Amino acid sequence: MSLSQSDTQPLYHQLADSFAAAIHQGTLKPGKRLPAIRRVAQSHHVSINTVLNAWQLLEDRGLIEARPQSGYYVRSVLPAVTPSVPHRARVKDPSSEKLDLIDQVFAAQNHPDYINISLACPQDGELYPSARLSRITASLLRRNPDLIGRYALPPGSERLREEIARRALHAGMSLTSEQITLTHGCMEALQLALRAVTQPGDCVGLESPTYFFLFPLLASLGLKALEIPTDPQQGLSLDALEMLLQEKRIQALIAMPSAQNPLGCCLSRQNKQRLAKLVNTYNVPLLEDGLYDELQFDWPLSPTVKSFDSDGWVIYCTSFTKTVAPDFRIGWIAAGRFHEAIARLKAVSSMAESRLLSETLAEFLASGGYDHHLRTLRRRYAANLDEARGLIARHFPQGTRATLPRGGFVFWVELPEQVNTVEMFHCLLKEQICVTPGALYSLSERYNHALRLSCCYPFDDRYSWALKRTGAIACELAGLPPGLDQGVPLRPQTV
Amino acid sequence: MSLSQSDTQPLYHQLADSFAAAIHQGTLKPGKRLPAIRRVAQSHHVSINTVLNAWQLLEDRGLIEARPQSGYYVRSVLPAVTPSVPHRARVKDPSSEKLDLIDQVFAAQNHPDYINISLACPQDGELYPSARLSRITASLLRRNPDLIGRYALPPGSERLREEIARRALHAGMSLTSEQITLTHGCMEALQLALRAVTQPGDCVGLESPTYFFLFPLLASLGLKALEIPTDPQQGLSLDALEMLLQEKRIQALIAMPSAQNPLGCCLSRQNKQRLAKLVNTYNVPLLEDGLYDELQFDWPLSPTVKSFDSDGWVIYCTSFTKTVAPDFRIGWIAAGRFHEAIARLKAVSSMAESRLLSETLAEFLASGGYDHHLRTLRRRYAANLDEARGLIARHFPQGTRATLPRGGFVFWVELPEQVNTVEMFHCLLKEQICVTPGALYSLSERYNHALRLSCCYPFDDRYSWALKRTGAIACELAGLPPGLDQGVPLRPQTV
Repeated sequence: MSLSQSDTQPLYHQLADSFAAAIHQGTLKPGKRLPAIRRVAQSHHVSINTVLNAWQLLEDRGLIEARPQSGYYVRSVLPAVTPSVPHRARVKDPSSEKLDLIDQVFAAQNHPDYINISLACPQDGELYPSARLSRITASLLRRNPDLIGRYALPPGSERLREEIARRALHAGMSLTSEQITLTHGCMEALQLALRAVTQPGDCVGLESPTYFFLFPLLASLGLKALEIPTDPQQGLSLDALEMLLQEKRIQALIAMPSAQNPLGCCLSRQNKQRLAKLVNTYNVPLLEDGLYDELQFDWPLSPTVKSFDSDGWVIYCTSFTKTVAPDFRIGWIAAGRFHEAIARLKAVSSMAESRLLSETLAEFLASGGYDHHLRTLRRRYAANLDEARGLIARHFPQGTRATLPRGGFVFWVELPEQVNTVEMFHCLLKEQICVTPGALYSLSERYNHALRLSCCYPFDDRYSWALKRTGAIACELAGLPPGLDQGVPLRPQTV
Repeated sequence: MSLSQSDTQPLYHQLADSFAAAIHQGTLKPGKRLPAIRRVAQSHHVSINTVLNAWQLLEDRGLIEARPQSGYYVRSVLPAVTPSVPHRARVKDPSSEKLDLIDQVFAAQNHPDYINISLACPQDGELYPSARLSRITASLLRRNPDLIGRYALPPGSERLREEIARRALHAGMSLTSEQITLTHGCMEALQLALRAVTQPGDCVGLESPTYFFLFPLLASLGLKALEIPTDPQQGLSLDALEMLLQEKRIQALIAMPSAQNPLGCCLSRQNKQRLAKLVNTYNVPLLEDGLYDELQFDWPLSPTVKSFDSDGWVIYCTSFTKTVAPDFRIGWIAAGRFHEAIARLKAVSSMAESRLLSETLAEFLASGGYDHHLRTLRRRYAANLDEARGLIARHFPQGTRATLPRGGFVFWVELPEQVNTVEMFHCLLKEQICVTPGALYSLSERYNHALRLSCCYPFDDRYSWALKRTGAIACELAGLPPGLDQGVPLRPQTV
């Protein structure tokens, strides 16, 4: 195998990707030792350093581990989720049962006594820079006491928009503060973008599985959903998308190209480029949901689709709720050719964002601790995911598969097909444990045996108990013993 | 004249209303002394105290003034605005020129160097309890540092919803915290309510003139606007409304029954009752915009239409942005029979409100200083309105008329018909003064000679200069000298 120097992806990334593929395809089996670094360097015509960087990346991705005085070994991993049920493109409205199920799950998630192991709502206050944000808030109020006493007007804090533009460069986006509209979190960003680019009756392409609130949101706007096959590792199928675009079957597309919710997968850089080209060629707006972009485990961040946007058809939507301050609910849109329409719509739909919260965020971003904080967050979430996957491997029924997220803190678990996870959800409620059944993430019945889980909680005894208990219930429902099939050795638990 | 003891309105209110009517109709002319208190008590069969209370109310409303050792006199007031141009009910979409004008006005309003005398955005930080809110914020963060580090989930702060329910009793509304949905300000409340109760193509009844952002909001949702005659003193014409309801010509109604924006008028208690009955009879949802309810100058507050809502057709929308903390943008809805639909829609449209801001507000409301603060605010805004009306009487062209608001801080000025206030807006921009032309408040050309002005700014030299200068430009455009016609004596200026 030879790597191409001219490719825009750094060499060590390419090298890591090819070994990752070998691991996922089973060519390199769990427990096997990786070839010696010097040999890999020779056979791939790269430097020793490049191999070391690649191994580092694979380690960060949880695929290999270093053993002292011995070398690098392929880690025991849960079997990966692979696309199982064939997709048939069907335009659908959510049924009222589906909407009711969303309500039930959400109501349960809200219950203070329940242990939540699947909502994507950071609850581990210690992970977030609360103390620093508090100090900034207090200091802003001391210096400018009437900040609270003045009305927040669109387009909102100039300083925050400048900081956002400055940071967007990290993800390859060249933006000015004037091109950015502040929103009430990412959910409002998506809502405004949908309202700006669609008409009732339009059809919107979605990844499958996708974030469950998109279904009722689309329905509330009179929009139909068309689910597009999405590979648990490679992400959205661009071939399927291109077919739909050629046939003019969708008028807009929502996708999460990095650390997708719920799968955790990322489109490759090449596919991001291709996606940008597709939507610009077919003039169909893409709502790029970048909510977990900065929580990708690979560093440097892979560029956004927006960074390849030639003609303004990509509407980039994101928020600080998962990265800096879960409580602040400040998001933003860079809407390309739709900027003016969306800025207007924001003003008449909910006016502007709080100056106090915006200026606090701006000062935090300007003061330079953000990257350090993100590194801590990524490490912690990656470690939590590892721990959770380890517990699942031991306690969930044989045949269980799980995705290996490339970022964020949610992942996707597919149980043996005989397990109905809606039924499981109800069983677990009786034990005060909340999970989100796969059925929520599609209008089809395709994921009735799947679960989304989340690692944004403190990884304490309560959380691990709930995860183990979920596994036990799943074993009962599946009529199968726990443990991985194929006798794959388990990774020792560190908790 | 005899007053009815059985009426639900207190006696002194009825008495005050009848004298107010006499003043507005010109039966009691400016400068005239009111009859002696004892004589009024005898002729109306009420106690001396009732008359004193009525006089107090009239004084609060700016209609009479006490002169030491002499008695009560009818104040020199600006002629009241009366409905002038006949309404013809027409369903309309906003023209793009109208939307562009809104954009231009809003862009100008945002300019930091411009003097704004008409936007309804409190900018007088000193008027608001910023210091106390800052202390509460800081103390909450000290006691619960990870407040910021936890995700805000719908339905939002239980404590704030409880405080809101407790206070809603003042306005006659009996609500539980479960019936309240927190929103991102009143604008989002209206937006959500519209989305919940209408379908694209529906027609929504509006007061005329009405809040200008409603036109682009309706247009963005594919809704048509039908403007209903609204009397500058009596408010929305319920006769016209009933006709429209009978003819099934509107599918929803937005109204501001107290301290209407931009007129400042209030529906009488009887008319509020009738309005509630109408929408419940015809099953047409009323979006009651209660944004200025707590800034009504009369005390006790007149009850909301919602308080007479028999069958859940009234959706009450309001916010704390004009009353407590302009920057906080926390509003709420009590949506009656639409509660569940709107709570769902809120969650999928923008999730929830910040816990930090919500808990701060809750603690402020619970700690008991709110009513005192509201009294201060009402007094200041009432005084500002008086000052502004005085300046207008002296500096605006003969024939100018103005509304006498019953609450809030905005009012409506109608200039001689030959003045085009869009033209005037552009002239004033050159002098860095911002006003909002009447044309914004309707899709018709009915208010092309009107202006909305606002008194939520510090009443300093800059503000008075801008008001005088606006008058001078208006005189030029009208080709008329300044000063009230009919030689009505001016009230001495206290600034």
